[in-house]
Amino acid sequence: MKFFTRGESQIFTQPRLKIDLNNLIDNYKTLCKIIAPATPSAVVKDDSYGLGAFEVAKALYERADCRNFWVAHALEGARIAEAVPEADIYVLQGIGADSRDLFEEYHLIPVIGSPAMLAFWKKNPIEGIKPVIQVETGLNRLGFRPEELKKLSKKDLQTFGMVLSHLACADEKDHFMNAHQLENFKAIRSKYFPEIPATLSASDGAFLGEDFCCDMVRLGAAMYGINTAPYRLNQMKNVITVEAPVLQIADLAKGEFVGYSATYRAAQKRKIAIVSIGYGDGMPRSLSNVGKVFFKKKDKMCEARIIGRVSMDNIICDVTDVPDLQTGDFGALIFSEYTLDDIARDAGTISYEIVSRLGKNTRFDREYLLK
Amino acid sequence: MKFFTRGESQIFTQPRLKIDLNNLIDNYKTLCKIIAPATPSAVVKDDSYGLGAFEVAKALYERADCRNFWVAHALEGARIAEAVPEADIYVLQGIGADSRDLFEEYHLIPVIGSPAMLAFWKKNPIEGIKPVIQVETGLNRLGFRPEELKKLSKKDLQTFGMVLSHLACADEKDHFMNAHQLENFKAIRSKYFPEIPATLSASDGAFLGEDFCCDMVRLGAAMYGINTAPYRLNQMKNVITVEAPVLQIADLAKGEFVGYSATYRAAQKRKIAIVSIGYGDGMPRSLSNVGKVFFKKKDKMCEARIIGRVSMDNIICDVTDVPDLQTGDFGALIFSEYTLDDIARDAGTISYEIVSRLGKNTRFDREYLLK
Repeated sequence: MKFFTRGESQIFTQPRLKIDLNNLIDNYKTLCKIIAPATPSAVVKDDSYGLGAFEVAKALYERADCRNFWVAHALEGARIAEAVPEADIYVLQGIGADSRDLFEEYHLIPVIGSPAMLAFWKKNPIEGIKPVIQVETGLNRLGFRPEELKKLSKKDLQTFGMVLSHLACADEKDHFMNAHQLENFKAIRSKYFPEIPATLSASDGAFLGEDFCCDMVRLGAAMYGINTAPYRLNQMKNVITVEAPVLQIADLAKGEFVGYSATYRAAQKRKIAIVSIGYGDGMPRSLSNVGKVFFKKKDKMCEARIIGRVSMDNIICDVTDVPDLQTGDFGALIFSEYTLDDIARDAGTISYEIVSRLGKNTRFDREYLLK
Repeated sequence: MKFFTRGESQIFTQPRLKIDLNNLIDNYKTLCKIIAPATPSAVVKDDSYGLGAFEVAKALYERADCRNFWVAHALEGARIAEAVPEADIYVLQGIGADSRDLFEEYHLIPVIGSPAMLAFWKKNPIEGIKPVIQVETGLNRLGFRPEELKKLSKKDLQTFGMVLSHLACADEKDHFMNAHQLENFKAIRSKYFPEIPATLSASDGAFLGEDFCCDMVRLGAAMYGINTAPYRLNQMKNVITVEAPVLQIADLAKGEFVGYSATYRAAQKRKIAIVSIGYGDGMPRSLSNVGKVFFKKKDKMCEARIIGRVSMDNIICDVTDVPDLQTGDFGALIFSEYTLDDIARDAGTISYEIVSRLGKNTRFDREYLLK
């Protein structure tokens, strides 16, 4: 910060992403209590929903004794292996010809979800690894269907170390699918897998009660601060903060247009700010003319509406009612009072998609908070 | 590929992204002809819209003699500097206290868009660098406004090596804003910057005629295959191909639901395929129940509709009418006949946002094609 002195114009260009690992760990511990006595495990797939699987897994391993991790792809498992040396790493998309080497090298545990994948495993087993079997109970995604389970031999059934299924509608407490899937899962367990542990729920299912928690719960979205039980107030702490600097403040005369395709027209004189963040940084373009930027002034957060289209590198907002705004001030796009859930609602999608996109931006000044 | 032999079930788990740099270079050369005699330059900001700025810039530099590159942030300039040693690298978001060191180290050229940024530059100039000035002509984004230009001294005006503005509606040939902005730009040039080169158009403006091309055109989206002149047939070649393997094929009984929140229900018996790609890989979730996956069978591309919600790692599609589909077959999600423009239309956004997201996924098996 040697390039300006207080009182001068401050100019910054780069947006910032702060990831509060302390809050993430607190969320994980809160969830552990909710699901007890089930064993907790952490879902760090998709690079921990974009937040950095290595950093997140390492923090959970060292500070919260997490010993079970879920990734989607083998290469994601390989990337965290060094951070969690004594943990079990499960790979949800399973094993194939393009990933088997990684399973062997990093001692990853595949989730096997189809007869074809089981056939592949039987021809290419890895010593010392007992795969998980995924069974289909109503989501109609990956997993053995009832008629496929029937065809498994006794030896096939003994191949597996855990049985897994996944809920379709667990974020709606009273959805008929929850009871329907639980019943299917119980029937499959008692018929085919009475002696191995079972996992049915992710962090939405964690709030549905003990029956749904089974032996292990896969904690993901809630740990990252997302409200996975939106029918009740969020118990999770906010984990991510996104801020970006004001590059320029300008007056807009009555009748002037703003942004690509001129989708905003000033009905009266306005003051606008150009903020250095855009969809290239992962902010959804669907926030055009809808989203908000917040500026802290005199201990109050002032809301400034996004006007015009979100472009790749910039967002324009109406700051007419923000007092004393200066070039170089940072606006908040996600923070404790306007969370991932809030921005997702405004953008017409789910929090998971927002964070997964944001986190992959390599232009952020990225900071991890960890006591 | 040692883990299966022909005739056995083939299992793959990882999606693939192919980037055809040959076609990208061909597009660049086509655009060079369209804009001649204006000087071409390449926009490689946002990591070349996600496709890898280092690889793209290097190919354009070595195979197409491109000597002018545009990035948004200084750190993006630093990342390509080694690939384009003799080129000029312009930084559109400009210079600030958080980036000045990079400008000096990598000899980057800032685009200065406000009096505050000019004041910063004058206090912290870098020897041998003449910045670009951005002027506002109607987009109401970054740039000096008319009243701000008036206040510049003669010495201020001589600071700059080029004058830049940006069009708001150049993808609509007859939009009133095009002529309006061109007129504003011409007036500013003749009044303040009669002796330095000027750049107004990006690749959408390239198709608006010689007047709009000025001295330099900033070629971006069209080079990546996007139709930036959608009122006419696309002259560009397709640059990216996205494919993902079928993990599982299953029957769906009448009345069954598919995916999160059970948003699809089978009105009759269907056959479905679970494909190993999702919004975690950058596929927009807005393709839920709308998008398409294509399978090549007997030299024909068969279309399979996405059913249910797109999830983080998987897409489910209806393959009832795809003959002989096998686990391990790859479906195409973007290719020459269903391009970025087509998927963007289905997803309700623009091609730029799709490619910017897709390219950042680190789970792809990524391949660059270059003769």
